[in-house]
Amino acid sequence: MEIIARIHTDFPTKFGIPRQSGLAEKLQAQIVFEPDYRNPNCIRGIDGWSHLWLIWQFDRAVEAGWSDTVLPPKLGGKTRVGVFATRSPFRPNNLGLSCVKLEKVEITKDGPVLTVSGADLADNTPIFDIKPYVPYADCRLDAVDAFAETRQDTPLTVHFPEELLQKIPEEKREALIEVLSLNPRPGYQHDPTRRYGFNYAGSDVRFTIDGDDLTVVEVVSLF
Amino acid sequence: MEIIARIHTDFPTKFGIPRQSGLAEKLQAQIVFEPDYRNPNCIRGIDGWSHLWLIWQFDRAVEAGWSDTVLPPKLGGKTRVGVFATRSPFRPNNLGLSCVKLEKVEITKDGPVLTVSGADLADNTPIFDIKPYVPYADCRLDAVDAFAETRQDTPLTVHFPEELLQKIPEEKREALIEVLSLNPRPGYQHDPTRRYGFNYAGSDVRFTIDGDDLTVVEVVSLF
Repeated sequence: MEIIARIHTDFPTKFGIPRQSGLAEKLQAQIVFEPDYRNPNCIRGIDGWSHLWLIWQFDRAVEAGWSDTVLPPKLGGKTRVGVFATRSPFRPNNLGLSCVKLEKVEITKDGPVLTVSGADLADNTPIFDIKPYVPYADCRLDAVDAFAETRQDTPLTVHFPEELLQKIPEEKREALIEVLSLNPRPGYQHDPTRRYGFNYAGSDVRFTIDGDDLTVVEVVSLF
Repeated sequence: MEIIARIHTDFPTKFGIPRQSGLAEKLQAQIVFEPDYRNPNCIRGIDGWSHLWLIWQFDRAVEAGWSDTVLPPKLGGKTRVGVFATRSPFRPNNLGLSCVKLEKVEITKDGPVLTVSGADLADNTPIFDIKPYVPYADCRLDAVDAFAETRQDTPLTVHFPEELLQKIPEEKREALIEVLSLNPRPGYQHDPTRRYGFNYAGSDVRFTIDGDDLTVVEVVSLF
């Protein structure tokens, strides 16, 4: 299996990454091809498609191996489900699958670069394949969601004090607020005093969650 | 990369296989896990989902390697498109991606067996991963199809003489007629006298296509 590209996102670790692709539409990322795949011919016509599939490696999960069952956070962390009935990273072959929106195609000195939105990948994740999303085959309107009852429909209300927000690069703010509104907390934790956090675009972002309200309490630059 | 399962379908070769998954809904196939993955725990709860993703290997394309561009049959075989702008088998890592409908889950002496419909895979194709189709992330209603204008909306009318149809096992007939109606002919061939054919469920099926009419002219048992 050869790495054809790597994705550059604002998440150095898994913490804070939206739980599926497409949830944070404002979150942009860049796909940069590996030297052997920088031929612009390889992506000829790709801008005719609006969405792409990425098949990638949960590279941070490879060492941990896989389990036959997992405890999905969305099910409260108490219900065991078979690995093939989940999108868990801890699976044989550690393959990930994400649908992203293609925003821009550029030819740079490092070959073609694809700007995409909605990616749920950590920074520098290796990509094994890029395919067009073919709506008439891939969009299944009749598909049933086994976890439907656990989906949180309403986004959190994000309280982000202006002086903290100023510490985030301006063009990254809107996406961060979107990510926070998606409730980046394990489904089975409900302590309103607990401080959660993740690294985003060079800052450590800390917050609390009380009911449907998320309040940012600290932003520390990592540089 | 480890093979976790193999799929058993009615197509010994690529000829006749629907061009994408989900097109031939009556076409059933069985997924049988490899010995190391026959633990029923691995699929616990999978029947809560209606559709599954298969990530698999275009194993017949591995030897041929890959090309930076391909000539999609749907574009008349004359327009070069980048490999990452198509679902061509001749791609780096030779990965395939298909969405199938889960019809039945059984625990057999060979471990769990998943019966699925709509698969576009050749018999015995190696599978690397099975994931649930998560509609809220995977069903993108706003996705644009670059090849939309070339899609054939209306199925062919299939003329299948009764004495030839009798040679096909009864439970395989409906799916075969569906497959034939999908126009299993390269998009750039239009000779009404030419005989096309493929192997299906132990028979060699031969037919001609004139306009929107497909006529089966011969069925020969391969046993």
